Amino acid sequence: MMHRQRLKKSDGRQLLLYSTEPLDGITEAPQPAGEQVHANSHLRWHPLRAEWVAYAQHRQERTFLPPAGWDPLAPTRPGHEPTELPAGSWHVAVFENRFPSLDRNAQQAPESIVQTAPGYGECEVVVYTQAPTGGLADLAPDDLELLIEVWADRIEELGARDGIEYVMPFENRGVEVGATLQHPHGQIYAYPFVPPIPARELAEQLAYHETHGRGLLEDLIEAEMVENSRVLFATDTIAAFVPAFARYPYEVWIAPRAPVPALSELDSRQRADLGCALRDVLRRYDAVRGAPFPYVMVIHQRPTDGAPHPEAHVHFEFYPQYRSPERLKFLAGTEIGAGMFTNDALPEAKAAELLAHDPATQVARR
Amino acid sequence: MMHRQRLKKSDGRQLLLYSTEPLDGITEAPQPAGEQVHANSHLRWHPLRAEWVAYAQHRQERTFLPPAGWDPLAPTRPGHEPTELPAGSWHVAVFENRFPSLDRNAQQAPESIVQTAPGYGECEVVVYTQAPTGGLADLAPDDLELLIEVWADRIEELGARDGIEYVMPFENRGVEVGATLQHPHGQIYAYPFVPPIPARELAEQLAYHETHGRGLLEDLIEAEMVENSRVLFATDTIAAFVPAFARYPYEVWIAPRAPVPALSELDSRQRADLGCALRDVLRRYDAVRGAPFPYVMVIHQRPTDGAPHPEAHVHFEFYPQYRSPERLKFLAGTEIGAGMFTNDALPEAKAAELLAHDPATQVARR
Repeated sequence: MMHRQRLKKSDGRQLLLYSTEPLDGITEAPQPAGEQVHANSHLRWHPLRAEWVAYAQHRQERTFLPPAGWDPLAPTRPGHEPTELPAGSWHVAVFENRFPSLDRNAQQAPESIVQTAPGYGECEVVVYTQAPTGGLADLAPDDLELLIEVWADRIEELGARDGIEYVMPFENRGVEVGATLQHPHGQIYAYPFVPPIPARELAEQLAYHETHGRGLLEDLIEAEMVENSRVLFATDTIAAFVPAFARYPYEVWIAPRAPVPALSELDSRQRADLGCALRDVLRRYDAVRGAPFPYVMVIHQRPTDGAPHPEAHVHFEFYPQYRSPERLKFLAGTEIGAGMFTNDALPEAKAAELLAHDPATQVARR
Repeated sequence: MMHRQRLKKSDGRQLLLYSTEPLDGITEAPQPAGEQVHANSHLRWHPLRAEWVAYAQHRQERTFLPPAGWDPLAPTRPGHEPTELPAGSWHVAVFENRFPSLDRNAQQAPESIVQTAPGYGECEVVVYTQAPTGGLADLAPDDLELLIEVWADRIEELGARDGIEYVMPFENRGVEVGATLQHPHGQIYAYPFVPPIPARELAEQLAYHETHGRGLLEDLIEAEMVENSRVLFATDTIAAFVPAFARYPYEVWIAPRAPVPALSELDSRQRADLGCALRDVLRRYDAVRGAPFPYVMVIHQRPTDGAPHPEAHVHFEFYPQYRSPERLKFLAGTEIGAGMFTNDALPEAKAAELLAHDPATQVARR
């Protein structure tokens, strides 16, 4: 059962606290020191790629690897500088990013030689836990299920706003992907359009659904289960696997086996199994290097236009930054300039490597 | 005037030597030590992105930051281990990559739950100079023009092969983008399909050409010249600019102002001006950090299907890995997972920053 409390910071930003138990006694949303940030994002149209690019100059001043001992995502301690979060019994917290790429107040855009638009949208920070280190895999099962409910809550609430067409939770984990804070957290972007990658996935899923009357990802997962050479974890409701078409060596997808279009439509059994799958995969990841494994994680589901989207199928995609325990995966000429990924490892081999790591073995953490 | 000599290595790979002067007296193509590599690439279809992914297990063993003093791209010295290249008066050399992602002998593909195909194609290495360090900007003007002719020669020759639909020269410069060798060099991939990014650019260019009877990039360059707030270098035939829609902070495009569809169709004046533009931009880049500036460079032009493609417009795209002199640009959740790039710097500001660096100031090089 998800309990939620809504507060407002002195600079106008919203703070949401979530717990599995009733929340009370927290009445103030702390405001960290520093001048108020005036977001003024705008979008420009890239005419050769047919996509929007967001410009957000105010982000140049954002917090960058703060000094040891200063964790703006930790609960504020009595007698110390305020962080972004209060003390209290919350388990998960969500607040509006102080340095947003897309901003709900954006109304203007400068003129340019290409089409421009206000950088309308929303950027939220999702704090997974009060613990200052670790990751998703360290959450208690109940808290991981709560987090899944929080993601669903945010997608539905942000998606219901006028002009928001797509909401994507994601996580950038590790300095290797540019994460500036170690405290376990993710982000949520609410977009004023369906962004190019979900749009492409949805178009392919729609075409398949119209032809076959079934889900593209549903049938792929069924084929993965039958072949069973890349499956890392499965129950009768959830599957985690290195896809046969992985572009990154340690790429993993996690999805319900049934074509559920949105996180908010998972039942409690699917949510519990999804938590188990996430924990299993992430512990295997950390075991690869005996250290927190850097990755980009994204959640893709249906757009937030209110339509049912039976072709959509909610899923997690993980893009780790290593190609072997010792070597980084770089995106270079053929990936960045042509869009053809080269993978030096077969997905079957990487699945076997991940399966060889026992997820029950706890990894030493700082 | 381009002179070319064709040789064959003992493992069957082709070596091409180029010079502005007649080449003679070089009769042997050296073969570095090591077992013969048996390339066995294949492609798998990514059904949600509708694109091919290349798998090349044999690349796991490729040369990785060789010990100091060993440069496989330097000319072979008498009495020393053979490198990939002979001694002699060549200025630019091209040879088939020993660890190709795509291979002209590929004929088979394993079965999978997704569509597969042989990893047919070609991967070449382009050695820019006999000098072991430096970069494109250090080439003598005649040699830079020769290199432009070499790129054009390779695109035309590889593109004429059956089954090759697109040829893309590119360069990954710096350890920050995963370059494993310091010797100034680039690569060329010949693809059995038009890869997703050039395909998207060409589709947008075609739609514009059909509507307006002019080139999309031609009109964009004209608008950049008129606004003149992002132009780094221009003559009456060539322009270099931070595009109004730059996705990377230091992104630069260089193109002929006229809509020339292919590098091979540049006249000698355009080629000379293109060399000047490349040198100007690359010296500004190196001045930003007072050190060689890491980037991915790609050349986009028309497909090699033999059609004239009046919508195509040859151009260079540079994607540097820094967002300020001190900070790296990371691709994270919104870029990798959604396809919406966020740029914390306005293209106008980055153009001004690059313009403030005098390209005549020589940068200290190792």
